[in-house]
Amino acid sequence: MRTVAYVGQHTLETPEAEPTPPGAGQVRIRVAYVGLCGTDLHIVHGNMDARVDLPLVFGHEMSGTIESVGEGVDGWAVGDLVTVMPLDWDGTCPACLAGNTHICQNLDFIGIDSPGALQELWNVPAHTLVRMPEGIALDAAALVEPVAVAVHDVRRSELAPGDRAVVIGGGPIGVLIATVARHFGAEVAVIELDPARRAQIEDLGFATIDPRETDQVAWVEEWTGGAGADVVFEVSGAAAAVLGATSLAKVRGTLVVVAIHPTPREIDLQRVFWRELRILGARVYQRPDFETAVELIADGVIPTDLMITRVVPMEETQAAFADLEAGRAMKILVGVEGSSATEAAGAERSEVPA
Amino acid sequence: MRTVAYVGQHTLETPEAEPTPPGAGQVRIRVAYVGLCGTDLHIVHGNMDARVDLPLVFGHEMSGTIESVGEGVDGWAVGDLVTVMPLDWDGTCPACLAGNTHICQNLDFIGIDSPGALQELWNVPAHTLVRMPEGIALDAAALVEPVAVAVHDVRRSELAPGDRAVVIGGGPIGVLIATVARHFGAEVAVIELDPARRAQIEDLGFATIDPRETDQVAWVEEWTGGAGADVVFEVSGAAAAVLGATSLAKVRGTLVVVAIHPTPREIDLQRVFWRELRILGARVYQRPDFETAVELIADGVIPTDLMITRVVPMEETQAAFADLEAGRAMKILVGVEGSSATEAAGAERSEVPA
Ligand SMILES: [Zn+2]
Ligand SMILES: [Zn+2]
Repeated sequence: MRTVAYVGQHTLETPEAEPTPPGAGQVRIRVAYVGLCGTDLHIVHGNMDARVDLPLVFGHEMSGTIESVGEGVDGWAVGDLVTVMPLDWDGTCPACLAGNTHICQNLDFIGIDSPGALQELWNVPAHTLVRMPEGIALDAAALVEPVAVAVHDVRRSELAPGDRAVVIGGGPIGVLIATVARHFGAEVAVIELDPARRAQIEDLGFATIDPRETDQVAWVEEWTGGAGADVVFEVSGAAAAVLGATSLAKVRGTLVVVAIHPTPREIDLQRVFWRELRILGARVYQRPDFETAVELIADGVIPTDLMITRVVPMEETQAAFADLEAGRAMKILVGVEGSSATEAAGAERSEVPA
Repeated sequence: MRTVAYVGQHTLETPEAEPTPPGAGQVRIRVAYVGLCGTDLHIVHGNMDARVDLPLVFGHEMSGTIESVGEGVDGWAVGDLVTVMPLDWDGTCPACLAGNTHICQNLDFIGIDSPGALQELWNVPAHTLVRMPEGIALDAAALVEPVAVAVHDVRRSELAPGDRAVVIGGGPIGVLIATVARHFGAEVAVIELDPARRAQIEDLGFATIDPRETDQVAWVEEWTGGAGADVVFEVSGAAAAVLGATSLAKVRGTLVVVAIHPTPREIDLQRVFWRELRILGARVYQRPDFETAVELIADGVIPTDLMITRVVPMEETQAAFADLEAGRAMKILVGVEGSSATEAAGAERSEVPA
């Protein structure tokens, strides 16, 4: 079978590999689509060489069908439509014992710390499986994982219906957070520098702010009757955005740190103190987030046509990363060979700005 | 009557003033003791000249007895022992309407934004009064306000019995937070650079850490069985402390920002994200905090003898600030003239290191 592997030196290859039967407690999935994300880009950049074993078959956003079922696995059958919540925890560390298995102190993130989905047949622990309804489009279903991230971020914020939320950064995760927050009853505005992205986001019905043209603090003040936003999601990863984010939040408002900030960032703690703000880290997801994400995709809440820029065959994965890095794509899926679902691989899905 | 007023140029004077009768809805208090705090020091330094009207009679930590009662005031009588929660809110801003009157967007902090307690007879709105039990020592009672700050910080942290809490900074507020957190059922360790302060804190029964001698992260890891602290209180105001604080907290742990940080501080957002930490601003107090603080002082929970370094007469207020600034005192009270309770003014209370 074909695989896509990061072999070091910023290089991807598509080596053949021999499929292995699923072990006890595992199922083997025939992978249909795999989404490429920012973490994968970090891997290919070599930023995570110290963490990963090479060669690494990566990929953790996926859809597929069960191809065979290992010993001792109940409740799953060949042909079931599934996605995978790619977290494997030890169950014994203080975080796990406190119920926070999703951020286990010794977490195995499948697709980073162990082999991922960019292979025709993929063995995973049965406990990672998430069922998808018949009739769900398998390409759209490859978005369940990033949608689950957005659901987790919104749940973590404790956003309530009627709240006003600001999303800083209108990339894929920002758009998903905005969509989920609106679905949960919030009014949402998105701060985004890129005019083409702003236009797409406005087409989805969201207010947008160009922070270079508009005083974002004054805009949010006016929008919220002088209160400030109930929730601010920092999705941009930019230092300036973090520094400004606290000025957008109401008294006792919440700032959710979604983006990865590799170096420490300056925060206006005077504002945190003065308004008794709350800053929350939010990482990955929990099973209810995945289940909600499946529903949102099955129900057509997520603008998957906008999100999926195009589908590429396995051997074009490296080129796809170049497009992602250049901001020429929202989300690119890899159509994995051998799946009948991926006949349309290579089709253009939607135009995005260069 | 005598007053203590900041007249600008880092200068205090003790001018005479004519007492005015309490207005409608006010009471007039015969002030017994006034505690000097860091905010007062900022005023005297001139850091708040843009905010305050000069000359300013300041002071907001106090105890006293009601001397006369204005029109329309029910439930209070001459001779009642009282302290004042020095907050006056508009009741109409978004923060007030959401129930957060204590951090009203147009808050009048009495003693900063309007005249404070450093005068023999002080008129305050009756709604600011907090009753104290007969028999409470009026000098100890002048600590109710800073104890209420500590109670607010601990309540805001949602600390639970059995939790392990780290207090960074063993000054007056740090010691009070440690004391309140322990009273609420936590085990507490205090990080403090000064050896004499560490010795005093150990005498109160707390574990202490000298971060220059001990790897504080390793210490807390071991203390908590590899989990990290449930709650970390940042009371030091130091940039390095903020940067290190996130490494002390457990998965989903809480960092409470108590200290004032006049400039933005670097925060390890990678750690905030990775462990899904929660950072909370905590400012002033609410009425239940004051009521709890009165009980804690009346019940002898607060080490008031350690906290109150000495009592000075009004004309020595400026010299007292010099001692506070040099770290030669935990808390200095001003014994206000004309109160029979302040006969002992000038007595040494406890020794602190130079
Ligand atoms: Zn674990
Ligand atoms: Zn207000």
